[in-house]
Amino acid sequence: MADAVRGDEAAEERLSEDDLIARYFRPLAGEGAFGLRDDAARITPAEGTELVVTVDTLVAGVHFFPDDPAGAIGRKALGVNISDLAAKGATPRGFLLSAALPEDCSPRWLGHFADGLRDAAEAFGCPLLGGDTVKTPGPLTLSVTAFGETPTGTMVHRFTAKPGERIVVTGTIGDAALGLLLRLAPGAAWTNGLGVEARVFLTDRYLHPHPRLALVPALRRHASAAMDVSDGLAGDLAKMCRTSGVGAEVDLGLLPLSDAVRAAIAADPALLDRAVTGGDDYEILAAVPDAALAAFLDAAERAGVRATAIGRFVPQHETPDALPVFRDDGTEKRYSSGSYSHF
Amino acid sequence: MADAVRGDEAAEERLSEDDLIARYFRPLAGEGAFGLRDDAARITPAEGTELVVTVDTLVAGVHFFPDDPAGAIGRKALGVNISDLAAKGATPRGFLLSAALPEDCSPRWLGHFADGLRDAAEAFGCPLLGGDTVKTPGPLTLSVTAFGETPTGTMVHRFTAKPGERIVVTGTIGDAALGLLLRLAPGAAWTNGLGVEARVFLTDRYLHPHPRLALVPALRRHASAAMDVSDGLAGDLAKMCRTSGVGAEVDLGLLPLSDAVRAAIAADPALLDRAVTGGDDYEILAAVPDAALAAFLDAAERAGVRATAIGRFVPQHETPDALPVFRDDGTEKRYSSGSYSHF
Repeated sequence: MADAVRGDEAAEERLSEDDLIARYFRPLAGEGAFGLRDDAARITPAEGTELVVTVDTLVAGVHFFPDDPAGAIGRKALGVNISDLAAKGATPRGFLLSAALPEDCSPRWLGHFADGLRDAAEAFGCPLLGGDTVKTPGPLTLSVTAFGETPTGTMVHRFTAKPGERIVVTGTIGDAALGLLLRLAPGAAWTNGLGVEARVFLTDRYLHPHPRLALVPALRRHASAAMDVSDGLAGDLAKMCRTSGVGAEVDLGLLPLSDAVRAAIAADPALLDRAVTGGDDYEILAAVPDAALAAFLDAAERAGVRATAIGRFVPQHETPDALPVFRDDGTEKRYSSGSYSHF
Repeated sequence: MADAVRGDEAAEERLSEDDLIARYFRPLAGEGAFGLRDDAARITPAEGTELVVTVDTLVAGVHFFPDDPAGAIGRKALGVNISDLAAKGATPRGFLLSAALPEDCSPRWLGHFADGLRDAAEAFGCPLLGGDTVKTPGPLTLSVTAFGETPTGTMVHRFTAKPGERIVVTGTIGDAALGLLLRLAPGAAWTNGLGVEARVFLTDRYLHPHPRLALVPALRRHASAAMDVSDGLAGDLAKMCRTSGVGAEVDLGLLPLSDAVRAAIAADPALLDRAVTGGDDYEILAAVPDAALAAFLDAAERAGVRATAIGRFVPQHETPDALPVFRDDGTEKRYSSGSYSHF
């Protein structure tokens, strides 16, 4: 599957690690990176702030298709981490990239990858601080560590949702999951009614995380708990419930769905489950107290982010196995292995 | 080569990512990790300090043997990063681990790996703050991001060596390189005269980094520049020269060598080049002004770390190609691809 990474032009030149860093990564370096001339980076936190740190690794053939556009892979590698920072109420400060590259990874591929990474770094205000490149006999493996900043004491946690609080999600759910299906089987029956625009939309949602940084101030101010939805709403909500010691009840009728996903579900109702369990949404799931809901939704609207209350957290004993209950027209669903699980 | 990781007991049970984290990694979690119940960690820097951040990735079959003891791999994954922090004059604060695990990685292997990681975390005062586990169809790939702390403005850089300053190295050079040779060919002619003690010593030096944290105060106070020696003295010194815009002259007669390496070189003089160019020393290379040398060596001795002046930095134009010159009994050597280079 790694043919795209190992392009025909692989033999055109072989770069030293120093050349590779100088050519592709130095242009992305920010303050504290010392032009990548040091073997570590420095972060000077602003007074009254704390750092939030997160790491996510993407493996070719597991988390993306090796023949996805190299620029999209670059944007995604940083984007998935920025999504984590946003959910914690943190403003991006910088990132480290560790890239394990197949030995015959082509300079052309690396150039496009670095372009995508730079686009994302600029869009998210998150410069490269340093990193590591190694060779691997296995698939391309990209590990990004991202640093964010919050005013001291304002980091938003995953494990602090309380019974009675509202379950809120941003954007629309399931677009990326159906974008992936479309990618795997572009001619499947459910896609017959999809127009070009819908296909482009779903594909973009699969390829490109759009981290909800605009929501950071509202999350810090109004949310009791938050996380990003990366492994599927059902599974990620279950994680929030387990770590918070609560249960959850979701009204599927309230789930925010894009027109494209609505059309897909109309063609094949089973796709609703796929939308609820599929990964790569990179939306935000938050717990918001009733008293703060109106202010939160208002702040989200002003920030240009759609936010929708879809249910409530409940005492844990009301939902056996800590699995969220999804209500739909009088029926109840639970997704026992709701999320894409790596193990 | 990954047979040891993929042990016979692989089929004994299949763990979810949550179970895996709870069982093996939660016991290592420190302050700011929130028991690994969040999807990001928090670092609250002490007043008047800055953070130093570094990442190193180890790939099975590239940076270690897949059948190395799992505990040694765990200690090494953290140790190589702590060595970087020490060279920057930074005190460890914590680390993130991103592990890309073959799907059939055995729980028993993971247990031993986590034990080694915990030993290192305790020894270096560097708790686990968070991380990520993913599956990979390729080799085991371990990426550690380590965070250290320095008083503001005291980080020691790689690119600040100046002409006239002394070149100082800690410990002994080349032990790990010969430990690797011993591992690859235990019956080679040069090993005939080695006693059991020397074999154990070289093997340990190859398997286990011993980061020079004790030298941190002396580096902050007296060194103009520093880096750890991980890719071989010749190559790493060349990197310091390139990034600092200086040249270097080393007297090979002053090179600190262990008894085991001296015996090996006596049996096969060509092994001196291997000692100078081989990786995995995890010693520290520093630039120290003449005026500070006595104080630096004294501080090192009091810290229990051997430190040896082996040469001088010189103006760059005196050493063409920015390659350090190694003098030995009237002859001059330069190592054009001196370091183990990943590309």
